Amino acid sequence: ELQLILKEYHHADIAEILDELDLEEAVYIIKLLDSETTSEILMELDEDNREKVLKNLSNKEIAEEIEELDTDDAADIIGELPEERQAEVISQIEDEEHKAEIRELMAYDEDSAGGLMAKELVKVYETWTVAGCMRRIRGQAKDVTRVHSIYVVDKQDRLIGRLSLKDLITAKSEQKIAEISNSNVDSVNVHDDAEDVAKVMQKYDLEAIPVVDDNQKLLGRITIDDIVDVMKEEAEKDYQLAAGISRDVEADDSIWKLTIARLPWLLIGMFGGLGAASIIEHFNGEMGDFIVLLSFVPLIQATAGNVGVQSSAIVVQGLANDSVDGNILKRLFKEFLLGLVNGVAIALIGLAITHFAFGTPYIVSITIAIALVAVIVMAALIGTFIPIFLDKRGIDPAVATGPFITTSNDVFGILTYFLIAKLILGF
Amino acid sequence: ELQLILKEYHHADIAEILDELDLEEAVYIIKLLDSETTSEILMELDEDNREKVLKNLSNKEIAEEIEELDTDDAADIIGELPEERQAEVISQIEDEEHKAEIRELMAYDEDSAGGLMAKELVKVYETWTVAGCMRRIRGQAKDVTRVHSIYVVDKQDRLIGRLSLKDLITAKSEQKIAEISNSNVDSVNVHDDAEDVAKVMQKYDLEAIPVVDDNQKLLGRITIDDIVDVMKEEAEKDYQLAAGISRDVEADDSIWKLTIARLPWLLIGMFGGLGAASIIEHFNGEMGDFIVLLSFVPLIQATAGNVGVQSSAIVVQGLANDSVDGNILKRLFKEFLLGLVNGVAIALIGLAITHFAFGTPYIVSITIAIALVAVIVMAALIGTFIPIFLDKRGIDPAVATGPFITTSNDVFGILTYFLIAKLILGF
Ligand SMILES: [Mg+2]
Ligand SMILES: [Mg+2]
Ligand SMILES: [Mg+2]
Ligand SMILES: [Mg+2]
Ligand SMILES: [Mg+2]
Ligand SMILES: [Mg+2]
Ligand SMILES: [Mg+2]
Ligand SMILES: [Mg+2]
Ligand SMILES: [Mg+2]
Ligand SMILES: [Mg+2]
Ligand SMILES: [Mg+2]
Ligand SMILES: [Mg+2]
Ligand SMILES: [Mg+2]
Repeated sequence: ELQLILKEYHHADIAEILDELDLEEAVYIIKLLDSETTSEILMELDEDNREKVLKNLSNKEIAEEIEELDTDDAADIIGELPEERQAEVISQIEDEEHKAEIRELMAYDEDSAGGLMAKELVKVYETWTVAGCMRRIRGQAKDVTRVHSIYVVDKQDRLIGRLSLKDLITAKSEQKIAEISNSNVDSVNVHDDAEDVAKVMQKYDLEAIPVVDDNQKLLGRITIDDIVDVMKEEAEKDYQLAAGISRDVEADDSIWKLTIARLPWLLIGMFGGLGAASIIEHFNGEMGDFIVLLSFVPLIQATAGNVGVQSSAIVVQGLANDSVDGNILKRLFKEFLLGLVNGVAIALIGLAITHFAFGTPYIVSITIAIALVAVIVMAALIGTFIPIFLDKRGIDPAVATGPFITTSNDVFGILTYFLIAKLILGF
Repeated sequence: ELQLILKEYHHADIAEILDELDLEEAVYIIKLLDSETTSEILMELDEDNREKVLKNLSNKEIAEEIEELDTDDAADIIGELPEERQAEVISQIEDEEHKAEIRELMAYDEDSAGGLMAKELVKVYETWTVAGCMRRIRGQAKDVTRVHSIYVVDKQDRLIGRLSLKDLITAKSEQKIAEISNSNVDSVNVHDDAEDVAKVMQKYDLEAIPVVDDNQKLLGRITIDDIVDVMKEEAEKDYQLAAGISRDVEADDSIWKLTIARLPWLLIGMFGGLGAASIIEHFNGEMGDFIVLLSFVPLIQATAGNVGVQSSAIVVQGLANDSVDGNILKRLFKEFLLGLVNGVAIALIGLAITHFAFGTPYIVSITIAIALVAVIVMAALIGTFIPIFLDKRGIDPAVATGPFITTSNDVFGILTYFLIAKLILGF
């Protein structure tokens, strides 16, 4: 009866329920129900929970679930298993074609087009007629959940066109495929980066894209639902990086896992803070009457941090969207101007407030104001330069936001502040 | 001949080229080519550029472009026009049905399902036969670029099921639609929030979803390409908010526009810095021998800021994914423990370094270490509490990241530091 109840719900909903249950209960349900039902549920489970459930299934049981999954999901699940179980599970898969296709997919990098594609697709030869094609498709399509496009290949299996089911049903049955197909077909190379595939599909509003090798041979296809997941993950990863959290934690994760993700960035910030302390120690002895300058260190530091994070965020996004080109100098000059405008605005307000509310002497207020302009300009330049520099080096610029930029700006900002003060006030 | 050259390229590619051209050239090309080609290009232009181009087109010219667009895009473009032109442009649209549908769509909030849906869809009645259905679809489908699902309605136009083209072509021609359709059809309400529609489509891996009113009447459908754009925009907006940038700026925007987006957050940070200054001023007079405490203000501030941003980012993401439930106390307790673990780790390292590298007396180093633990715990609690509080109040918690959290933590962190120092050192 449980089987009947669960049949009513979408597998994604059942997975949400299982994610809340105890491990034993979840494993019990997965074992109880046939793999036609449970394979999709398994796929939708939280990754941590899936790992635990899989530990409690035998190789044979996992292989049975795998039989029911599309090749892309099958390869992903096997890829999550410990190395030593992988070969064993694959060898237990009965369908030889499915087995070979999964083996093929497992060879690709998970962040590449090959790592996202499935072998399930509908393929026709250019020489076929519409009627013949319809017959073949009725066969092929039963393995393909959603058809999207039908891909047209030549005798060497090279992708040469596409047509939609709609084209097919509105064509005359004696027409040749070559006559009704569209030769203007987008495709991606199997080694293309997953994020680039997402950009292409977003740009051209595609629901599926065929994947080819260097010889244009059709290898598989990527569907938009998997790209939507890639986009979501990438956005979350970048958001966390910008907040100083190493990738891939959730609010529900253990304190230990969260500490591992957060502590390194706090340490970076700490060394920055200690660097700032030694700068202050250095100038502290010389400052004499101008000890009041120390009160405005938090203002300098907060401003430097905020400006740096703003600048780096805009550059990191621009780089991700390919809207920031390689012209570093032009970009730096713009940030310089922007820093100047923001800096002067902030400095004038700061000048008035420090003088009237804090009663600092004019010369000290002016020093703080000039330092604010300098620090803002500097922070904007550092925030712009570092991501572009990393990007040119092939490093993901998203790491250069948040604590990374804040820390460098804390140290350079405070140093700049005291150097300018020393210059103006002459201590 | 230009027309022929441009026919070779995808409209998204041509739009990219036009975005780089001068305004006059872009307008010239839009006017020169027929609206069948240019309407899609117009749709893909950068929003700022489209606004400028539209200013240079007459109401009649805009109406001609609109005729060629799907209703969702048509309503969006008209919505971007200045209020006074909108009615005029709509009245120039010749196709009466298109005109009425656009008017209907313009009534919905742009961040709702109604604001995303198009009227173009393929609809059949449950009483039809497969053969009759195929005939009708050949008619309806010419207006619908991609069919995805065929929606089944009853006599009152209420959505009662769906079927795919594949179901249709694999069915026998005398079968009734009711026999082959799937009554388990996902739909969203026309007033649902755009982000919730995105969640549903992502969860159930949908390429299109029908939109209904409160009586289940079928009003339109939303396709995944538009949801992909919503997801992208939302992710960028949240990323920018977390970096202290009011929504919707790009690296290419004018310095003026960028200043408007950035300066308010710098001002917030500035007032925080000035608040910190007055706290320091207050304690400065009493501190006596313990003036060395001032050197470690940047360390306290940087740590408080980093922890606060980390905690708030995790909570904001958790709230967005519905994985953080309303149990504030449980969440705060977890962050308390996490802060304690991170705090003790940081404090022990800080204790050793301040004592040995800076030669501060034990009692001062211990003071700093204890303050670090307290400040980290406090920052974690503030970073957790504020987003949850805002969310409960119906305010987007994404605003409570970055500078907002950093500034409150700067002030409270420094205050906590000196209060603890006063307590331990007794000045
Ligand atoms: Mg099972
Ligand atoms: Mg994969
Ligand atoms: Mg798009
Ligand atoms: Mg589009
Ligand atoms: Mg898939
Ligand atoms: Mg990225
Ligand atoms: Mg035109
Ligand atoms: Mg709209
Ligand atoms: Mg999904
Ligand atoms: Mg999926
Ligand atoms: Mg659309
Ligand atoms: Mg949001
Ligand atoms: Mg800071």
